[in-house]
Amino acid sequence: MINHQILLAELPQGALEERHFRTATSDVADPRPSEVLVRTILLSIDPASRAWMAGRTYRSQVEAGSVMPGFAVAEVIAGDLPAGMVVACDAGWQEYAVLPVKAARPIQVRSELSHYLGALGITGLTAYFGLLDVGRPNPGDTVVISAAAGATGSVAGQLARRQGCRVVGITGSAAKNRLLEAELGFDATVDHHSSTLFEDLRGACPTGADVYFDNVGGRVLETMLPQMNIHGTIVCCGVVSQYDTAAPAPGPRSVPGLLVTKRLRMQGFLVSDYHDQWPAAETQLAGLIDSGELKAIEEIIDGLTNAPRALIGLLAGENLGKRIVRIGKDPS
Amino acid sequence: MINHQILLAELPQGALEERHFRTATSDVADPRPSEVLVRTILLSIDPASRAWMAGRTYRSQVEAGSVMPGFAVAEVIAGDLPAGMVVACDAGWQEYAVLPVKAARPIQVRSELSHYLGALGITGLTAYFGLLDVGRPNPGDTVVISAAAGATGSVAGQLARRQGCRVVGITGSAAKNRLLEAELGFDATVDHHSSTLFEDLRGACPTGADVYFDNVGGRVLETMLPQMNIHGTIVCCGVVSQYDTAAPAPGPRSVPGLLVTKRLRMQGFLVSDYHDQWPAAETQLAGLIDSGELKAIEEIIDGLTNAPRALIGLLAGENLGKRIVRIGKDPS
Repeated sequence: MINHQILLAELPQGALEERHFRTATSDVADPRPSEVLVRTILLSIDPASRAWMAGRTYRSQVEAGSVMPGFAVAEVIAGDLPAGMVVACDAGWQEYAVLPVKAARPIQVRSELSHYLGALGITGLTAYFGLLDVGRPNPGDTVVISAAAGATGSVAGQLARRQGCRVVGITGSAAKNRLLEAELGFDATVDHHSSTLFEDLRGACPTGADVYFDNVGGRVLETMLPQMNIHGTIVCCGVVSQYDTAAPAPGPRSVPGLLVTKRLRMQGFLVSDYHDQWPAAETQLAGLIDSGELKAIEEIIDGLTNAPRALIGLLAGENLGKRIVRIGKDPS
Repeated sequence: MINHQILLAELPQGALEERHFRTATSDVADPRPSEVLVRTILLSIDPASRAWMAGRTYRSQVEAGSVMPGFAVAEVIAGDLPAGMVVACDAGWQEYAVLPVKAARPIQVRSELSHYLGALGITGLTAYFGLLDVGRPNPGDTVVISAAAGATGSVAGQLARRQGCRVVGITGSAAKNRLLEAELGFDATVDHHSSTLFEDLRGACPTGADVYFDNVGGRVLETMLPQMNIHGTIVCCGVVSQYDTAAPAPGPRSVPGLLVTKRLRMQGFLVSDYHDQWPAAETQLAGLIDSGELKAIEEIIDGLTNAPRALIGLLAGENLGKRIVRIGKDPS
């Protein structure tokens, strides 16, 4: 058996391009004790992958010449877990991977397999804990969400709606905004390209914003700060506007001044800190999908070799919902 | 009776200078129903006064030509409170003021009168609630405090020490740092003028910082961010480095990126939000002063006409502890 792989050939300095990747093959290794060999089925495409190339984050920097890391849903082929078991793991951009058993999280498949990379996976859980544990909106609050048509934002917005909040989405296109309003129950939307972004946000938040779920940082964050109500909360989830560039924007000018005068809380979080609460949250999110209260927006692109283009496009904001690359067939 | 006053003659654009102020006199007005006439005894000199000149904050902007506002301890002369009662109020920079009764907070004088503008006043209460309610350090935590020899910082540091924390002070002079270490129990100190500020802080915080009580913003805040431990807290209390300038520094570059990867909470607060808890906190702080566990560091400057210079010097960081201007004699 041959293992097709995609390596990060070169660390990008500025914007990520296809030339930074290359294909490779390897033999499929045998798992040793306490390891498993898995076959990748679906690969998650995530903006954070670009941050991993820029330096140490909550994980070590990706090294040039190594298999591009990435979350996946995979099937156990051999080793210290039952063959045929479906697991979530960082299999990387390749058809087969050998991992420590501890690094493979068994999935009880009760829903579409792709959902376990989206609304029931890392991004859905990120939305869940970021909104409910960090943001903690009250009914009637105005909740603003950036990258609102993305994998995390689209779930966060729907959860905020269920909390009885007025939900305002910020995206980069009219098509995305139409989807949010027509399909996902957002009360209002704003295009971040607008030259009147400040006024647009003011119009969309006539009583100000109580919670801002920030996936992007940069100019949108700076523009949101003066819209915050006293004692408001900014959930710092991601900084996607700053990942794919050699020249990050300066920090928001109104930090820390406005945090004091408006008594704001600005708080970062990682979904990994909630690990012991994942099963309960997954059960709750699955129930909402089953009942139709939560729509899992996904795009599935076929073929490992399309993964670089899928990530580059994601960083440019072309995705609608969770972007996934199909590497292999579903388990039989 | 003639009321000597100091007006803000002109709104400063850059650094505050004496020419921005002028003296004036007025008649002493009679209080109407629900008002009191008070005689100012001690006037509080606060960095926030400069922020009030720059624009709307938690109060409206100071207007050119009006009496400079400021907190004071004053004695009731006439009106709807008993004559001779001592009150805390925003009497402004003048010998006499007429205020609504509601705006005068009666003081039960059980300690030095000056303490009611410092360790038992707004700055002491600010340190108390900022550290204990926003910062919430645990025993063994490293707590870093900027403007640590100031009215708020010096109290916050001593309270953190009492919580069993390692306390690191940042000030602008060796003399201040000596005082903190020799008299107030700080474990280590750093001079923010140092060209090796980052390394100095790393040396002073060998296990990183768990709570940073930020009074200054700017470069010191940006330098502290990478020193924060995972799940650390930044208490946003003030931005004194940015008040007295026409060209504020850009925001800290690592916001919001480091807030996410380190899961930091950055939270602003105002002491006014804790109004109903002031009496209990004042009682506790007074007990600590009585027992010698809390030292109230103060400098008292004589004479209303010295108030402008006192504020200008405060903004340049020349004060040690709470700076107060004596306007009138103690109550008989």
